[in-house]
Amino acid sequence: MERQIIEWLQGNFPPRPPVFVGIGDDAACIEFGSRPLIITTDAIVDGVHFQTSKHSWRNIGHKAVAVNLSDLAAMGAVPIAIVVALVLPRETQLEQVQELYAGIRSLCDRWGVAIAGGDTNVANGPLAVSITAVGVPLEGRRPWLVSGAEVGDSILVSGSFGGSILGKHLTFEPRCDLARHVARQYEIHAATDVSDGLLFNLSVIARASACGALLALDSIPVSQDAAKMSDGQPALDHALYDGEDYELILVANGEQAARMLEDSRMPTRLTQIGRIDSGDGIRASQSDGSERPLPIRGYSHEPNGASR
Amino acid sequence: MERQIIEWLQGNFPPRPPVFVGIGDDAACIEFGSRPLIITTDAIVDGVHFQTSKHSWRNIGHKAVAVNLSDLAAMGAVPIAIVVALVLPRETQLEQVQELYAGIRSLCDRWGVAIAGGDTNVANGPLAVSITAVGVPLEGRRPWLVSGAEVGDSILVSGSFGGSILGKHLTFEPRCDLARHVARQYEIHAATDVSDGLLFNLSVIARASACGALLALDSIPVSQDAAKMSDGQPALDHALYDGEDYELILVANGEQAARMLEDSRMPTRLTQIGRIDSGDGIRASQSDGSERPLPIRGYSHEPNGASR
Repeated sequence: MERQIIEWLQGNFPPRPPVFVGIGDDAACIEFGSRPLIITTDAIVDGVHFQTSKHSWRNIGHKAVAVNLSDLAAMGAVPIAIVVALVLPRETQLEQVQELYAGIRSLCDRWGVAIAGGDTNVANGPLAVSITAVGVPLEGRRPWLVSGAEVGDSILVSGSFGGSILGKHLTFEPRCDLARHVARQYEIHAATDVSDGLLFNLSVIARASACGALLALDSIPVSQDAAKMSDGQPALDHALYDGEDYELILVANGEQAARMLEDSRMPTRLTQIGRIDSGDGIRASQSDGSERPLPIRGYSHEPNGASR
Repeated sequence: MERQIIEWLQGNFPPRPPVFVGIGDDAACIEFGSRPLIITTDAIVDGVHFQTSKHSWRNIGHKAVAVNLSDLAAMGAVPIAIVVALVLPRETQLEQVQELYAGIRSLCDRWGVAIAGGDTNVANGPLAVSITAVGVPLEGRRPWLVSGAEVGDSILVSGSFGGSILGKHLTFEPRCDLARHVARQYEIHAATDVSDGLLFNLSVIARASACGALLALDSIPVSQDAAKMSDGQPALDHALYDGEDYELILVANGEQAARMLEDSRMPTRLTQIGRIDSGDGIRASQSDGSERPLPIRGYSHEPNGASR
């Protein structure tokens, strides 16, 4: 259902000036004086993205900010400010809201982000935290889009993948420092963050860039949590398909990528997992030199809300 | 509960650079290159601000945008773009989302506002539409705040008040044209929009400006809907206390106000309802020359959600 709506939106709401990047990228870009304004909005809801029955309000506040800062990092943008719209269940206590804001404030303080404003509502329904974050590219830089990958480019990823449901989805640190360092030092052709699964989000870059991608599966950084998942699925499958890793995919030409991989001041470990090519979709290279197509399936929150 | 939270937020989250107006005004202001960025967020929720059982999704989309554009108008700002975060009930049909977006798009098109991006979620809960709108003051103008009223200033209001529950709360047109015309031609000391009731929102200006206000009650423009309310309350009480009129309160010096009242190109009828003074709180002038204090009570959405 979400995807059906998003596809309809992408088809029917093309960007129009002063918006030059609209629905379909990690964030929207608006021409605004000398520097573009980068803006993104993400809502998280009880029973879908977290569970108030088992997660602390402080962690929920952290996550609500983190998913938005991750989107800005995926654009190579520096966050400036957020606004917060809350829908609170009737039984909410002031102390819970204060805890929520403690999580929001702590992450904002770490990255120098101002809490500019908000809207607070009480309703008969689950807790929903909608945050909008605004930022800017570094001086003289353009935002990273999903559409700029070129044949021959290297595909790098930060961190490791899979099993975020064991905790990382709630407590992850958005890759703000990585984005800032990379934007300052390197030229990135395309980027996104992994919210819906490594393969799914990589396929968004491939499709938007009218390219394919060939991956070396043994190079995929599989997280320890992926290995801990006890559902019988291989850890690699978790790494490829689980959602909410909130790591960055960075696409750059071979020379830039090689320098990034050797950069000892890189804030987060980067790994090359494959190359952009002119092939069809996302494929895995096999030991005999042949390729096999990798099916794309997007991570989807459980319909019964039990997953997070 | 909402007010308790808002008061805690105002006390604990003072604006910090580059934010120069934060929580407590109609929108936040952020220094951003040559012109400030004005940003506001408002969420509306089923059972509180509308009812899906009796209101169309198109009208709900309209209202979700309108409440945000009204906040920008209250800052004297021209809207540029919005982002939309949806929490949809499980049973939502694509056609309903398309209707919602038809209402969003129609109002955005009328005022040249771009739909820059969004986030769509399905959850076990009521429909919630969170919109964030960004805008800018007119070239060379500063945003209108609640805090700039001066003793002796005239208090003008647009349109008429009371009984919005009969329909206006859902279908009102935000005063974008009025704000643009006034910002271009006149100097405004303070402004806000009436979301919580005329007296309540005027009291926000008075308190923020460390002033009082003396009203001539027979000059308050009472709407026809206020007179139609059949709960036994006087129509004037509805005009003073009902919420969601979404008219503007504009405070300016006497000379500016007089010119505004005589301006034949003013897009909306303005009425002077009183003056800012150094007295205590909001008072009504009586025929014998004495004053009587007007109690302030903020409009609050019914706890059972039955009101809208």
